[in-house]
Amino acid sequence: MDHQGRQARLRNELGRSRLDGLLVTHLPNIRYLCGFSGSSGALLISEGKSVFFTDGRYTTQAKAEVQGARVVIRRKAAALAAAEWMKANRTSLGGKRPGRLGIEAQHLTVAACNQLAQALASNFRLREAPPLVESARMVKDAEEIERVRAAVLLGAGLFDCALKAIRPGAKEVEVAAEMEYQARRAGADQMSFETIIASGERSALPHGRASDAPIPATGFVVCDFGVILAGYCSDMTRTVHVGRPPNEARRIYEAVREAQQAAVAAVRPGVSVGEVDGVARKLFQYNKLGRYFTHSTGHGVGLEIHEAPRVAAGQTETLCPGMVITIEPGVYIPGKWGVRIEDMVVVTEQGCEALTPTSKELIAIA
Amino acid sequence: MDHQGRQARLRNELGRSRLDGLLVTHLPNIRYLCGFSGSSGALLISEGKSVFFTDGRYTTQAKAEVQGARVVIRRKAAALAAAEWMKANRTSLGGKRPGRLGIEAQHLTVAACNQLAQALASNFRLREAPPLVESARMVKDAEEIERVRAAVLLGAGLFDCALKAIRPGAKEVEVAAEMEYQARRAGADQMSFETIIASGERSALPHGRASDAPIPATGFVVCDFGVILAGYCSDMTRTVHVGRPPNEARRIYEAVREAQQAAVAAVRPGVSVGEVDGVARKLFQYNKLGRYFTHSTGHGVGLEIHEAPRVAAGQTETLCPGMVITIEPGVYIPGKWGVRIEDMVVVTEQGCEALTPTSKELIAIA
Repeated sequence: MDHQGRQARLRNELGRSRLDGLLVTHLPNIRYLCGFSGSSGALLISEGKSVFFTDGRYTTQAKAEVQGARVVIRRKAAALAAAEWMKANRTSLGGKRPGRLGIEAQHLTVAACNQLAQALASNFRLREAPPLVESARMVKDAEEIERVRAAVLLGAGLFDCALKAIRPGAKEVEVAAEMEYQARRAGADQMSFETIIASGERSALPHGRASDAPIPATGFVVCDFGVILAGYCSDMTRTVHVGRPPNEARRIYEAVREAQQAAVAAVRPGVSVGEVDGVARKLFQYNKLGRYFTHSTGHGVGLEIHEAPRVAAGQTETLCPGMVITIEPGVYIPGKWGVRIEDMVVVTEQGCEALTPTSKELIAIA
Repeated sequence: MDHQGRQARLRNELGRSRLDGLLVTHLPNIRYLCGFSGSSGALLISEGKSVFFTDGRYTTQAKAEVQGARVVIRRKAAALAAAEWMKANRTSLGGKRPGRLGIEAQHLTVAACNQLAQALASNFRLREAPPLVESARMVKDAEEIERVRAAVLLGAGLFDCALKAIRPGAKEVEVAAEMEYQARRAGADQMSFETIIASGERSALPHGRASDAPIPATGFVVCDFGVILAGYCSDMTRTVHVGRPPNEARRIYEAVREAQQAAVAAVRPGVSVGEVDGVARKLFQYNKLGRYFTHSTGHGVGLEIHEAPRVAAGQTETLCPGMVITIEPGVYIPGKWGVRIEDMVVVTEQGCEALTPTSKELIAIA
């Protein structure tokens, strides 16, 4: 991964944001910038240098993983270790007094920010930095897209496990267990979120985590799942029907499929994410299902399962080649049923490529 | 669970902290107070009432789960929904102008806090509340201890899976896969953290997540794992040796076991967590291993895998009956090997009870 290039590009942004340095505390941002994948650390990027702070639990891991930054091990919270280092080395941070240190306001807690301000005393002034790293992360480079692609393919294979495991009377968690077992055996780091297997009435819960409930003899089963492979996430949803689907169920399913495909077809450079959301939303409204589509159409995926951009009403972010997003409209009729279909797509120069290879035909499980 | 009692006790604390209300945004705190287990919400606790805010994805789940609070569904971030509701209902919040609204500074991000302050305008003043809910959560009630106990027993059963799966040449992730599969089949919601299977030199990584590495023909294997069952976490570590352990390995193992048992023996009401940490630390120093014990002795466990109190040097929290903590000293010699042994214990009136039932004899896997 091009960690040094990422740090260099971020450095260029610092001046434009009128910052002498940025203290990166959000772990996925740290991983993106320097490769560290542990659960505790802080990365200081200033004009002249990059310094990574962590504690003794990560000495070996930091040495093995961190690229383009000096590693400092301290027996205290990483952000506080960074503050002390900055005070001791302030001349090397441009020497301006007080320096302007950017913080990640979207991630740093109020308490941590206060502690940091106190530790830095009058040597630095804290500034809320714009989401510089998140913006950079929105557009994936070729190596990242390759990793995403691998995660998506591994994830998609789990749908076959689900199809084998779903049968009337099987518990939802048993289906999830089979999928997660195969994911691990196939090399996934972990699932990218809690596996959703929501059957019967539970299919109307957009976030219906697999429960102890047995799958009913007839009805929809929403399967929403993903893996993390080499740090990158996958995310997909398919909805199958146990037993012969009644006409109403077919109608709903086809409406969701139509909305999903139309939204995918709308994805291309220059279009805003709000417009993509609008395509799905308008089709549901036309089919008198608008009020049952209770969430947004999608989100970015990469080192995090939910990252920028949000594909939602009112969002103005413009799609660019290299962005990876989900398209996942759904319809949920409380107490009755729900359907969601989700693919991951990567924006290309001409339009987009659906990464998820799986068929969207309605599958009825006898 | 006694959700209404928890809310009532928190209400009593508000006055003492000079707050008219507390906006609870940390999800485990929300679950503790009102039972909601979804991934998006905010709970407003004021003198007179409790109101829970979430979005349309959680309509059905909120109605099924939330106890002791009115449920308000809004199509926006829950904390902002709460802010608008507060502005519209300020007379019912004591009518004082401006009201004093506590926020969870340890959890709320700087950006979210700014948004909240802006949305509330001059109607409320934000105050950083002390960790009222975290303090309450430290002491578990009987029903919680029962849940923790069930999670610990389920988790402990996975060690048998590990023992069957660990053999020279097997990949660490294969061992983790077997354990996680059994966890799911036995009813676990999910693992409480990424399973650590760290073999050979990797055993010197305190946080050595299971990797693709094959288990060497000889050396330690650190197994650190836990489950979430009905919301409550378990956490345990055992270290086994593949092949016949050399004398030096036995010596290290026994030193860790001795430190672990001594620290468990020190756990009783009235003792500070720092003293418990000191017991393990001093024994390592006596055995000339002090500098290889690079983390703290333990932490609270409950709805979160890491919660208060921290069992660490310099921490002054006093142990009380009902607290549930881990005791997990370890020794890590970079590039060579590592050993950690971890139990969960509950503080009782007389001392403590080890919840983890598993033997701590050194197991050699042929």
